[in-house]
Amino acid sequence: MKNKPLLLDCTLRDGGYYTNWDFDEDLVAEYCRTVENLPIDYVEVGYRSIPVKGYLGEYFYCPEYVLKKLKKLMPSKKLVIILNEKDIRASHVNELLGPCKDYIKLVRLAIDPSNFKRAIVLAKAIKKMGFEVGFNVMYMSNWKENSSFLDLLEDLDNTIDYFYMVDSFGGVFPKDVIEIIDLVKSKTNCALGFHGHNNLEMAMANTLTAIDHGCSIVDATITGMGRGAGNLRTELFLTYLDSQKIERIEYNNLSAVVSKFEKLKTEFLWGTSLPYMFSGANSLPQKQVMEWVGMNRYPISSIVNALNNQKEAVEDN
Amino acid sequence: MKNKPLLLDCTLRDGGYYTNWDFDEDLVAEYCRTVENLPIDYVEVGYRSIPVKGYLGEYFYCPEYVLKKLKKLMPSKKLVIILNEKDIRASHVNELLGPCKDYIKLVRLAIDPSNFKRAIVLAKAIKKMGFEVGFNVMYMSNWKENSSFLDLLEDLDNTIDYFYMVDSFGGVFPKDVIEIIDLVKSKTNCALGFHGHNNLEMAMANTLTAIDHGCSIVDATITGMGRGAGNLRTELFLTYLDSQKIERIEYNNLSAVVSKFEKLKTEFLWGTSLPYMFSGANSLPQKQVMEWVGMNRYPISSIVNALNNQKEAVEDN
Repeated sequence: MKNKPLLLDCTLRDGGYYTNWDFDEDLVAEYCRTVENLPIDYVEVGYRSIPVKGYLGEYFYCPEYVLKKLKKLMPSKKLVIILNEKDIRASHVNELLGPCKDYIKLVRLAIDPSNFKRAIVLAKAIKKMGFEVGFNVMYMSNWKENSSFLDLLEDLDNTIDYFYMVDSFGGVFPKDVIEIIDLVKSKTNCALGFHGHNNLEMAMANTLTAIDHGCSIVDATITGMGRGAGNLRTELFLTYLDSQKIERIEYNNLSAVVSKFEKLKTEFLWGTSLPYMFSGANSLPQKQVMEWVGMNRYPISSIVNALNNQKEAVEDN
Repeated sequence: MKNKPLLLDCTLRDGGYYTNWDFDEDLVAEYCRTVENLPIDYVEVGYRSIPVKGYLGEYFYCPEYVLKKLKKLMPSKKLVIILNEKDIRASHVNELLGPCKDYIKLVRLAIDPSNFKRAIVLAKAIKKMGFEVGFNVMYMSNWKENSSFLDLLEDLDNTIDYFYMVDSFGGVFPKDVIEIIDLVKSKTNCALGFHGHNNLEMAMANTLTAIDHGCSIVDATITGMGRGAGNLRTELFLTYLDSQKIERIEYNNLSAVVSKFEKLKTEFLWGTSLPYMFSGANSLPQKQVMEWVGMNRYPISSIVNALNNQKEAVEDN
């Protein structure tokens, strides 16, 4: 590794897909105290959102008292929240982000490439408020087929601080990562980021490849807790940095917090499994798989069969 | 993937480290019937051994009635047994392997490079009996420092059918795999194999790299069941082959047998975790880690601390 990348831990944000963004208060406090003493640069603590349908927990809305508490526990860290671009317009940002100014350094946007133009309007409004802005652009495995949205990146170097490639399906391999980075680099000078998923147990390999090819920031979560098959594990990446003498890790507190999340994992069962492998290898959305696997009611074979039908329907279209 | 490699499934052999080589008879039967219909070329069913100290189950000794039963369940497969080179001499082979002739195609030897000369004597005796011979040579991450044993490979092309590189510590990365393959290729024309471990979640990435750089056979196990952090998962590799249209997989039976092994995994807890990541990243043996993790009695932090001490002792020497 020639250049050490910035590391962003998004355990509470991405892990919230399993807990509906509710987390035990003691666990959050232990997580924060541990992260505060690790070589992690940014900590994404949740979403912020206008009210949306159905019950969603504390870390989906991150009210000011939550942000205040988190900042007190992690005074040295740059805190991050993410917005679902599909729900948020530029007209929302003053009310939505005004109360975040004292606590949040970076605001990320989860963006479907088909809404890219709209996202730029939102990004400019957020940037004007003084935040760093990150673009988390989804479905990177499809970009090779449809990359026209990337032309819109011209002249946005001062608006976007980090342009993330998100492996939404968990289906890319190192050669894809390299090709897509080259494609993006041909369109922008933005600092690049990579957010991997572990469907095919390629999150670590893809992340290392992304770093070697010029990504300057990468995402990870404790125990890989995150939507579907989950993410690169923070403890794996840190252990790697330690073994390479790039960073020195203090394992005592890290181990303790990892143990607690491992325990939570036995309840919520994130991580890859045959249905996620199948959806990753065939670029199928993991939302549906997550519902089926999470219900713990269908045998794996039924889920894979249903996915196989989806795949054939996709191929027929 | 330019050339499809041969696939060797060693679930019962490597998984035996967790069950002490005892497996439920119905599970074995279901495993065999499933494997029989999958694009798996070789199936390693266990060790064969002279009596060694302590109790070790059926698949550590693989008596003839076991081999006969397995062959009946998997008539189209090439069955494999492995010998621990450290325990077996050429003088044992007639008695030990004579009864295997009707059932076993390939005999592999697990070899410490420091016993390489002795292993060649054993290999010649086995080859003379008509078996294919595989060398599973351990500690590949150390070969770059000490590769003199590879000079002994000259003139062994007719003795060794497969020369496997074993990532014993689970610590190699694709660039290491490439370098070590180049090193081995400079010494022999043997068909090369790769046996990965998943400590750093690199088993899949390393295996794909090995194949791209000329390995013609690779190992995997159902759910990754295997010593320490375990192996490349058979179902992951097969799903990949299916998605690439290299093989067609029938998922129904595969899913069912994967489910049963996943259930066993909740009891025996193979797979990676922070202690295995640490031992992998620092090239420490996983035997000790496995005992500590398996006892389920020590907090992760104590295990990592003990490993840290081991690492410093290694560095001091």
